[in-house]
Amino acid sequence: MVENTVADPTIRFELKFDAEARNEGKYRTDITVIRRSRLGDEHYDMPTDEGQAVGGDGTAPWPLCYFASGLTGCFATHLRMFAKHLDIPLNDFSVSTRCHWEARQSGAAPYQATPIAFMLDIDLNAGTDDAGKIRLIRAASHGCFAEQSMKPGLVKHRLKSGGGWIDV
Amino acid sequence: MVENTVADPTIRFELKFDAEARNEGKYRTDITVIRRSRLGDEHYDMPTDEGQAVGGDGTAPWPLCYFASGLTGCFATHLRMFAKHLDIPLNDFSVSTRCHWEARQSGAAPYQATPIAFMLDIDLNAGTDDAGKIRLIRAASHGCFAEQSMKPGLVKHRLKSGGGWIDV
Repeated sequence: MVENTVADPTIRFELKFDAEARNEGKYRTDITVIRRSRLGDEHYDMPTDEGQAVGGDGTAPWPLCYFASGLTGCFATHLRMFAKHLDIPLNDFSVSTRCHWEARQSGAAPYQATPIAFMLDIDLNAGTDDAGKIRLIRAASHGCFAEQSMKPGLVKHRLKSGGGWIDV
Repeated sequence: MVENTVADPTIRFELKFDAEARNEGKYRTDITVIRRSRLGDEHYDMPTDEGQAVGGDGTAPWPLCYFASGLTGCFATHLRMFAKHLDIPLNDFSVSTRCHWEARQSGAAPYQATPIAFMLDIDLNAGTDDAGKIRLIRAASHGCFAEQSMKPGLVKHRLKSGGGWIDV
């Protein structure tokens, strides 16, 4: 999957994740996610359900729980990875994500969903100044596969600085 | 969160999912996802890690596993939900999702991620013809909070029909 030539020093690689979902009649969906890799596939059982308040059985997390974890985890992974690339000493850090959607429905018709915003508040315990931290956040934003799949402008970032927050 | 007036019969509602992530120094990120609701918050532990081949410890699924499950589960939930709205008898069904990304990296600089496509192959065991199934898939597409958060054109759907597939 890795292409590299002497003429072009750019490395290109691909990622493939498949999800096989089966629904038998209620809101629970049994999902197996497969990470495709040259080294062999990896399988994970990641079922979803709705809560009882909306007609589900609450046997598994809501689908959007997975979505929120996936976005946040992918971004956090890239903070950790790119701190090494950028030679920034990074100790522990936290990311607090708020995912916010709305829907509109006329009568009994199916509703239409719209995302409002995904806000990532980032607190980095790192041996660099705010400029270095902002550089790291921007690199993670561009490298994050989940964030780069979102509608442009939807994901926003803030860096904790002293007692306040800086929009990045 | 539900607004409704006599003058405008449109119902509007909001969804909020937060993720609190903590990273202590390796690729593992401990993530608690909180579904915010007027009926009370629900908490789910949904940690992520990278595999050992890329420097992680493999203690939890990859972030993009969560992402793939979230997208697929949200779409499947809306197939189930909107079949009722559209009065389509829907028995069991399957959704097979292929998530595909690429990245490009020059030298030791952080790489840049780009999504290629998310393909959803849908097989509906339903008491309706292909036109009815296509209507259901389009409704689920518009109602799926995860899909509506993606870059336009990225998510594609195919319906199984006889021995082949129909682009929806």
